Amino acid sequence: MATLGFVEYDDAGPEVRAVYDDIMLTRNTDWINNFWKALAHDPATLKRTWQSVKGGLAPGGLDAVTKEMLYLAVSASNQCAYCIASHTAAARKAGMSDAMLSELMAVVGMANESNRLASGYQVEIDEAFKPR
Amino acid sequence: MATLGFVEYDDAGPEVRAVYDDIMLTRNTDWINNFWKALAHDPATLKRTWQSVKGGLAPGGLDAVTKEMLYLAVSASNQCAYCIASHTAAARKAGMSDAMLSELMAVVGMANESNRLASGYQVEIDEAFKPR
Amino acid sequence: MATLGFVEYDDAGPEVRAVYDDIMLTRNTDWINNFWKALAHDPATLKRTWQSVKGGLAPGGLDAVTKEMLYLAVSASNQCAYCIASHTAAARKAGMSDAMLSELMAVVGMANESNRLASGYQVEIDEAFKPR
Amino acid sequence: MATLGFVEYDDAGPEVRAVYDDIMLTRNTDWINNFWKALAHDPATLKRTWQSVKGGLAPGGLDAVTKEMLYLAVSASNQCAYCIASHTAAARKAGMSDAMLSELMAVVGMANESNRLASGYQVEIDEAFKPR
Amino acid sequence: MATLGFVEYDDAGPEVRAVYDDIMLTRNTDWINNFWKALAHDPATLKRTWQSVKGGLAPGGLDAVTKEMLYLAVSASNQCAYCIASHTAAARKAGMSDAMLSELMAVVGMANESNRLASGYQVEIDEAFKPR
Amino acid sequence: MATLGFVEYDDAGPEVRAVYDDIMLTRNTDWINNFWKALAHDPATLKRTWQSVKGGLAPGGLDAVTKEMLYLAVSASNQCAYCIASHTAAARKAGMSDAMLSELMAVVGMANESNRLASGYQVEIDEAFKPR
Repeated sequence: MATLGFVEYDDAGPEVRAVYDDIMLTRNTDWINNFWKALAHDPATLKRTWQSVKGGLAPGGLDAVTKEMLYLAVSASNQCAYCIASHTAAARKAGMSDAMLSELMAVVGMANESNRLASGYQVEIDEAFKPR
Repeated sequence: MATLGFVEYDDAGPEVRAVYDDIMLTRNTDWINNFWKALAHDPATLKRTWQSVKGGLAPGGLDAVTKEMLYLAVSASNQCAYCIASHTAAARKAGMSDAMLSELMAVVGMANESNRLASGYQVEIDEAFKPR
Repeated sequence: MATLGFVEYDDAGPEVRAVYDDIMLTRNTDWINNFWKALAHDPATLKRTWQSVKGGLAPGGLDAVTKEMLYLAVSASNQCAYCIASHTAAARKAGMSDAMLSELMAVVGMANESNRLASGYQVEIDEAFKPR
Repeated sequence: MATLGFVEYDDAGPEVRAVYDDIMLTRNTDWINNFWKALAHDPATLKRTWQSVKGGLAPGGLDAVTKEMLYLAVSASNQCAYCIASHTAAARKAGMSDAMLSELMAVVGMANESNRLASGYQVEIDEAFKPR
Repeated sequence: MATLGFVEYDDAGPEVRAVYDDIMLTRNTDWINNFWKALAHDPATLKRTWQSVKGGLAPGGLDAVTKEMLYLAVSASNQCAYCIASHTAAARKAGMSDAMLSELMAVVGMANESNRLASGYQVEIDEAFKPR
Repeated sequence: MATLGFVEYDDAGPEVRAVYDDIMLTRNTDWINNFWKALAHDPATLKRTWQSVKGGLAPGGLDAVTKEMLYLAVSASNQCAYCIASHTAAARKAGMSDAMLSELMAVVGMANESNRLASGYQVEIDEAFKPR
């Protein structure tokens, strides 16, 4: 179920198949999850989004599990049901344990609480915290 | 500047001073930032919030810099100016480099983009991603 | 399913029926969708909301399909499942093609990404962009 | 400062002046705050918004101070700086004490925390809580 | 259904049972709703969250029904399905009538509208509204 | 002012300069706004973000002014001060009049209101609105 339906591999044109192939190769899997199949009606956005995700999640200064946990933290904060489900799976695959998940969620909860207290009380930024 | 003004250490009662002392001890600093001084008109919330933050940010299954980066990621996603400023400082103190900050922000941006694509296209959760 | 249940036409009082009649007349349909039936327990809010929506979506400086696309863009950004479903239908009825939908979603995704990058990096507003 | 600038009373046409007069009468004040002056370039939205706010905040099953506190709670949760400032003032005028403000903010913080924990852990709604 | 599953009373250790007992005693019920059972895999967060909720919702300067309505207003504004369902039930138990619910939702809707108008038009905060 | 400061053209390396040149060429301007200068400490994200924005805003099934208005609508809904300021300017340059701006903001306000009413009343999606 998705607004425009799903583009399955067998029905996809070469541009979409190339993205699907790269997703499966990069992730070492043999299937494509619904997110990409729902985007594939618009091959340009599919390709741009995948390249952005692939580049952004590649290990660099931060390792793969940290990046996936940041992704999950933002998705939990935004309450995106699809993204919470898919990135919980992805973060676990990258090494997140149940204990790490629990600590992550505790930080997400706290940050959401203190964000509103800071804004709600109209707290001025300390000089020491201001960017250059 | 804050709705109820700031409670400075010298004007604080013993309950508030005890929290202030614990904040400075835990963080190894000699000053209290505006957030806590704005909350201190309500000592019960001050104490509860500090205990929650202290407990939640203590290293456990996740180390201190990862927790601070998760906090910053959520604050950036929520666009809380005060919290972005203060937790950028805190994450740096805990070891986040400029390169790590840039990668963090890239993930925050991507997650916010894909969250809306997943929801906007009404993408159904894959069976493989559903929790038990 | 809705908190207070639905008020069906046959069970509605004259104040609610008048709104229902105007909805069907304005939209050239013969049924009332769940949103209005869930609001109808509070006839004052029903009437106020409908008048606001009717006035706000009437073609003016912007045509009907543009207004419906703006509505859908906000709903996708807010991740409101009901509103995404209903305004996808309404925008299509007003003339939005699949290609237009895909471009709309791409903009929604990008805007959500760059909003967080701008806020997360604490970017100061350029003088040239400040309002008078 | 506002995108389209402010429409002052002396420069306003009769339609805008009628709204301004009703605002001052209803609120028992002799000035118009920036929000309305920024909207007044679009008299239709000005009038619709004011009628909606006037109707929605009039005491009914809930008294004025409770309604203003609900307004402030939502504005704090949404982190709208203008609305937090203006509705803090309005709620105080309607009778909110400093202690009530502190308790309100504590609830706003908690709700934002638990909202993310419920969504982040993908918690299913209990049968007992489902609407009819 | 929840990411880590539910911890039922009979399977819980003494630390979790103590929290469950206090929840049932405080609320005068004989069951535990899914939210707490989903958190209980992390007893520290379970205990901290419950103490925070218990303390924050206890009647003080604001009575119980007002606190529950503030909670519901924030949850509706954040569109957290679980929290809307559970706090609609809690607010009703505390005395919220259908008419009060409707007025609450009308305020939530209005506040969300005017928050975006204020921010969207870049409205400057009036001097009279600025905190000390 | 920005977390990592701004990278000015004269201080930029060839990779960043190439992006800056393309921004100025595409937009037919002779300056770079702060957003890009704040991102430029991370050339990979700078390049990826610019290519995404350039591709996503190019006229296609939707014309340039419609795309800029969708961008502004999302930014207003998200209350991103920087993005509201910069995309108000961009939308005007693309042809948005004051009247179009006012109608846009009215839709943004309404959509935010009805999004919360739909979610707050737990309204079930009509069969007729469900995607395939």
